[in-house]
Amino acid sequence: MADNKASQILLAPNRTGAQTLIFHNRPAIASCAAIAGDMEGQGNFGEHYDLILEDDLWGEDTWEQAECKMFEEVVRLALTKENLSVEWVECLFGGDLLNQIISANFAARQLQLPFLGLYGACSTMAESLLISSALISGGFLSCAACAVSSHFCTAERQYRFPLEMGTQPTPTAQRTVTGAGCTILVQEGSACAKNVVVTHGTIGKVMDLGITDANNMGAAMAPAAADTICAHLADTGRSMADYDLIVTGDLGCLGSQLTRELCLKKGVDLGDKYFDCGERIFTAAQNVKAGGSGCGCSAVVLNAYLLKELFSGVYHRILFLATGALLSPDSSQQGESIPGVAHAVALECC
Amino acid sequence: MADNKASQILLAPNRTGAQTLIFHNRPAIASCAAIAGDMEGQGNFGEHYDLILEDDLWGEDTWEQAECKMFEEVVRLALTKENLSVEWVECLFGGDLLNQIISANFAARQLQLPFLGLYGACSTMAESLLISSALISGGFLSCAACAVSSHFCTAERQYRFPLEMGTQPTPTAQRTVTGAGCTILVQEGSACAKNVVVTHGTIGKVMDLGITDANNMGAAMAPAAADTICAHLADTGRSMADYDLIVTGDLGCLGSQLTRELCLKKGVDLGDKYFDCGERIFTAAQNVKAGGSGCGCSAVVLNAYLLKELFSGVYHRILFLATGALLSPDSSQQGESIPGVAHAVALECC
Repeated sequence: MADNKASQILLAPNRTGAQTLIFHNRPAIASCAAIAGDMEGQGNFGEHYDLILEDDLWGEDTWEQAECKMFEEVVRLALTKENLSVEWVECLFGGDLLNQIISANFAARQLQLPFLGLYGACSTMAESLLISSALISGGFLSCAACAVSSHFCTAERQYRFPLEMGTQPTPTAQRTVTGAGCTILVQEGSACAKNVVVTHGTIGKVMDLGITDANNMGAAMAPAAADTICAHLADTGRSMADYDLIVTGDLGCLGSQLTRELCLKKGVDLGDKYFDCGERIFTAAQNVKAGGSGCGCSAVVLNAYLLKELFSGVYHRILFLATGALLSPDSSQQGESIPGVAHAVALECC
Repeated sequence: MADNKASQILLAPNRTGAQTLIFHNRPAIASCAAIAGDMEGQGNFGEHYDLILEDDLWGEDTWEQAECKMFEEVVRLALTKENLSVEWVECLFGGDLLNQIISANFAARQLQLPFLGLYGACSTMAESLLISSALISGGFLSCAACAVSSHFCTAERQYRFPLEMGTQPTPTAQRTVTGAGCTILVQEGSACAKNVVVTHGTIGKVMDLGITDANNMGAAMAPAAADTICAHLADTGRSMADYDLIVTGDLGCLGSQLTRELCLKKGVDLGDKYFDCGERIFTAAQNVKAGGSGCGCSAVVLNAYLLKELFSGVYHRILFLATGALLSPDSSQQGESIPGVAHAVALECC
């Protein structure tokens, strides 16, 4: 190829490095909410959730319907908490782990909002924040809602074994979090904007180091997490010193340890400024093997805990990554390995 | 609620009406490509496809692998056709109909591009064009690839019955198109930009009039198609006179007729300026019941035929909608109806 990119394509101004968008016109958080299952309610962030379910069905006939209800209610809750009207939301972004993202689709039907469905497996919370931030920053939306959900019982039924079988988890298995989280974004300067803005988004690549064990998702996602963290730092010229905290979504105990090691190999020492939501969400006494997983895992920790710590100034700058294992029962049965992807957004108290 | 939206939220400048984004800084098409199955190759647009498969497996072991190969190859083909390098693509947007969008995910792994996975069922081609156009228009990306795929054999296996059963289609059934399409977008003014730009995007709402027959997807999607067409015209203040053509994705013979009727009820007469890709893609002699469906249906017609007609000035302005039936075997078995969604982009020869 004779011509190079710069001679062929006008370069984008709001962009740095290979994978990172810069939001000069910064989207701000207007509200957030998190709904969690009963077991999650007994975990480390129990006191922070807006609502804790008493049981897995939440008055519905099926677990799938309960998950859909969580998705819808967490959006309504995030809005009513701050006296915002559902009609003000110009677009709902989100997804879930179920085939055809039925939780999100059916909730979007109930909410009657313009809806862009996303599938990034457990990376969807960060993916929705990244895309909606770009649309707000670009002046295309005034107000966006980002929401995701996951449910232990629906995920087990779809991805592994029916719960009725009573299959024992392996030591490397993670427990899908029953929970839903929602973040409401508006333009900075809006009367309803809080003091936290999204400054950057880093789009992940699909990485695959050949993990084939569906009970070791942390290992499948770790390469993508490490790649996106290092890409973000390289793209922005930032270092660990620029962040109070780097948080990944649901790598669990094993995956987060691997992420530390992979980052260290690339010259980034995560040190004591790093934690993984899946590793932290349950207490040791709850004995959930390698930790929590699912879209809901990072979504409830972000919307119940991390954003509050930013609002109150405990943290000033956080890099939030959600990590997705692109696991499919069909592709696994056809001998494929499990690729992973991780997207990141930089959140800043201002 | 005491306060209204305008007093609480800074309004977005690049937006009109309730659902429509305006791309003042216009993304332009740099290239496009379409790969189609053998049966599609014998259809009405056969002469326009860049590549026609000789069989459903395309040298792979499984249909799923063949679909994934189509996805990857259509992106590479769109780039090589115009002498563009894969490394210049800053983000790949797309999805497919398979659970966990495995065709898109595994293709993204092979291409090693930053990737944002979308799920809008058969609306994904328009959804990816809409989101990527906003990111280019907002100055966040210089070059984006939008791609989707579908495959008759993988879709039947997942959504209906294994092909080996030899189930007879009902008269209202549509045939999932085996095909993949890719559009490459850059900023207008780029040396590689062609004379077609994206001027608007209209985000659809999830609509549901209670259709429960998985063999009548056209009827399930028609309300969403009509709603988005009318919303687009209302938002932009345009009428049918402003468009040379309005094209929907895969409503088929029945769904497109219903869309005409629903639009007419809302005061919009689609007249002879409307066609549906699903209705047109096969010939009458091919006897495929109500027509074609699947993400690939609108994607191959857009990228093989419609864009060429815009490049050559046969048409000056087209409203392109892709329509998705949010069908899930699980939700259907739990008694749910089939909601639909439709997203639109306005394409203009300049």
